[in-house]
Amino acid sequence: MSLGTVAVVGGGVIGQSVAWRAATAGHRVSLVDPAPGSGASRVAGGMLAPLSEAWPGEEDLLDLGRAALAHWPRFAARLTAATGGDPGLRTEGTVLVGLDSADRAELDRLAEHLAGLGHAPEKLTGRQVRALEPGIGPEVRSGLLLAEDLSVDNRAVLAELAEAGRRAGVEAVAGRAVAVRGNRIRLADGSTVDADVVVLACGAWSAGLHPSLHAVRPVKGEVLRLRARPSALPPPQRTVRALVQGRPSYLVPRAGGGLVLGATQYEAGHDTEVTVAGVRDLLRDAERVLPGIAEYALVECAAGLRPGTPDNLPLIGWLEPGLVVATGHHRNGFLLAPITAEAVLALLDDRPPPAPVLAADPHRLALTREPLSGVSR
Amino acid sequence: MSLGTVAVVGGGVIGQSVAWRAATAGHRVSLVDPAPGSGASRVAGGMLAPLSEAWPGEEDLLDLGRAALAHWPRFAARLTAATGGDPGLRTEGTVLVGLDSADRAELDRLAEHLAGLGHAPEKLTGRQVRALEPGIGPEVRSGLLLAEDLSVDNRAVLAELAEAGRRAGVEAVAGRAVAVRGNRIRLADGSTVDADVVVLACGAWSAGLHPSLHAVRPVKGEVLRLRARPSALPPPQRTVRALVQGRPSYLVPRAGGGLVLGATQYEAGHDTEVTVAGVRDLLRDAERVLPGIAEYALVECAAGLRPGTPDNLPLIGWLEPGLVVATGHHRNGFLLAPITAEAVLALLDDRPPPAPVLAADPHRLALTREPLSGVSR
Repeated sequence: MSLGTVAVVGGGVIGQSVAWRAATAGHRVSLVDPAPGSGASRVAGGMLAPLSEAWPGEEDLLDLGRAALAHWPRFAARLTAATGGDPGLRTEGTVLVGLDSADRAELDRLAEHLAGLGHAPEKLTGRQVRALEPGIGPEVRSGLLLAEDLSVDNRAVLAELAEAGRRAGVEAVAGRAVAVRGNRIRLADGSTVDADVVVLACGAWSAGLHPSLHAVRPVKGEVLRLRARPSALPPPQRTVRALVQGRPSYLVPRAGGGLVLGATQYEAGHDTEVTVAGVRDLLRDAERVLPGIAEYALVECAAGLRPGTPDNLPLIGWLEPGLVVATGHHRNGFLLAPITAEAVLALLDDRPPPAPVLAADPHRLALTREPLSGVSR
Repeated sequence: MSLGTVAVVGGGVIGQSVAWRAATAGHRVSLVDPAPGSGASRVAGGMLAPLSEAWPGEEDLLDLGRAALAHWPRFAARLTAATGGDPGLRTEGTVLVGLDSADRAELDRLAEHLAGLGHAPEKLTGRQVRALEPGIGPEVRSGLLLAEDLSVDNRAVLAELAEAGRRAGVEAVAGRAVAVRGNRIRLADGSTVDADVVVLACGAWSAGLHPSLHAVRPVKGEVLRLRARPSALPPPQRTVRALVQGRPSYLVPRAGGGLVLGATQYEAGHDTEVTVAGVRDLLRDAERVLPGIAEYALVECAAGLRPGTPDNLPLIGWLEPGLVVATGHHRNGFLLAPITAEAVLALLDDRPPPAPVLAADPHRLALTREPLSGVSR
């Protein structure tokens, strides 16, 4: 079966997931990116954590995230079947912890919110937290166990997606897109790429490519990569998300003693430099949660630009004839990649996407329906 | 004029300086190193600071260091003449600063010691320190101005030395030495390199190459490289060396807004991993000295292994027939490279080396004269 041609712009986890799935469904797919897998997806922590990030008023996002999480086991199995590799899906769950009483109150609010939605998490004392994860330090006084929230190894997923895409016949186009209109992509060298359908998946760079996407803004996140040295305590089994006197922090374990550490977010434009203050704060807060990391090797400091939207929901759907968008996934690119790929496949086939994706209709934002004239970008 | 053949083992700043100078003097020189310029010399801060590190009982080292510093301007000019490049010699001097009263007492002891040797430094109040270097923070209460202590850009020096060596005809041998006996080098692949004279300049790896060098031990130093962002205060003009409640810290400016930050030392074997605790401590202490670095980019974290000796003096001289050693330079590799190269040139020509180098005679250590039997390496 040969269907139409699809050109995906952007080789992050969203673009690569869409390209691979579309190619296996019979489309002729090209992927336009000068350096696939080198942007925010490479820096990401890889948390699949819809419950941990649930927030009153964002029920649509929670529904989308939970539906997305349910897609992951099959997506991971398909990847492994396609490549023989392992995307590093960890099923040990997530423990949220807090230090002071205000942190505990914040965890209690989250627990109450989730209980109202039918997902009551287990509340833990500091002692119970340490019984689960012995490396957690004495300053931690409270916790919640969220067995549903998982993680993947973001770099393993990117490597598997690249390999799976190659095997499925995805054609790599190493150009940098500078504009997308309908089903035509203009590249920096002045050439164009045309396809039956273009899928725009450029994350934090989307606003510069199409005027209706100007509400997508870059949100900088600094992430450190550590590795347990032979003399140090091993990393936790679960993802540990902490409130350290109000400041969020996360520590995501990897196979082989790796630990990914993040939290800082800045609205700072297209700036991917890591700052002294960012690293200092990340290390300080993380050491209060897991004191043993003092003896870990600091392997890498990096920053990525997540694509934020005004309501924190992504933009997934037809933007105009010939153009599907799949962007604005903010901190949830890995979580949402499988369901986004399924949704885009459905749109390409004139089928309805999974119901929770409807809330991500790109036309929901008034500004994208009627772009302000003269908006500067 | 064609003199004999010289094989230099080790492509750090010492080995490359020796190789270049020997080649320009007419020797046929080969430089044996699988990756020249990639070890401790690449990580170094590049301070040329004999006075700042003066210590009672180490007058020989101070004499050697001051003589070495006097060689630098001509060495730098020769390098520039050879390559057209710039090794980044900065002549703005060094300011030592202290925070608490114990730090001030330590600075006073150094000032008194130097005064007794005829180099009385200028004592400064915190206010005077900030008048010299406005970026220095309010916690700094005292200081010393050491106009004689300078710095070079270590990576620029390595690049210029590599280029100058190529132009002078130094032959690169990309093998890894595993043993040196007399004028024969054995490589990891089982082959040997012979020369009229071998110069062993393997820094922290020296002990493994010759049994008489077993007292040379690796001393780990962690070094961060920062860069001022456009919005941040510029780096200081001078090298800033600080005592932060007893902990030493140094901040060495580079052209273009760079700042090299170091201090930590560990006796940790051949371990070049950077640890969370090391980075945390470096940043914490440095921010107390120069608060504006919080907004600097953190560009690189690395660790190098300096070659320590029991008396902190290097080993420069004939070890046995056919074998000159030039190692054990500890924290002073860049400072001592020009005078070490001159000393080795003199030895190759049967001339006496510069007088202050005599204290670095490798036979001064009893253990190198009579190696203990059964010492394990």
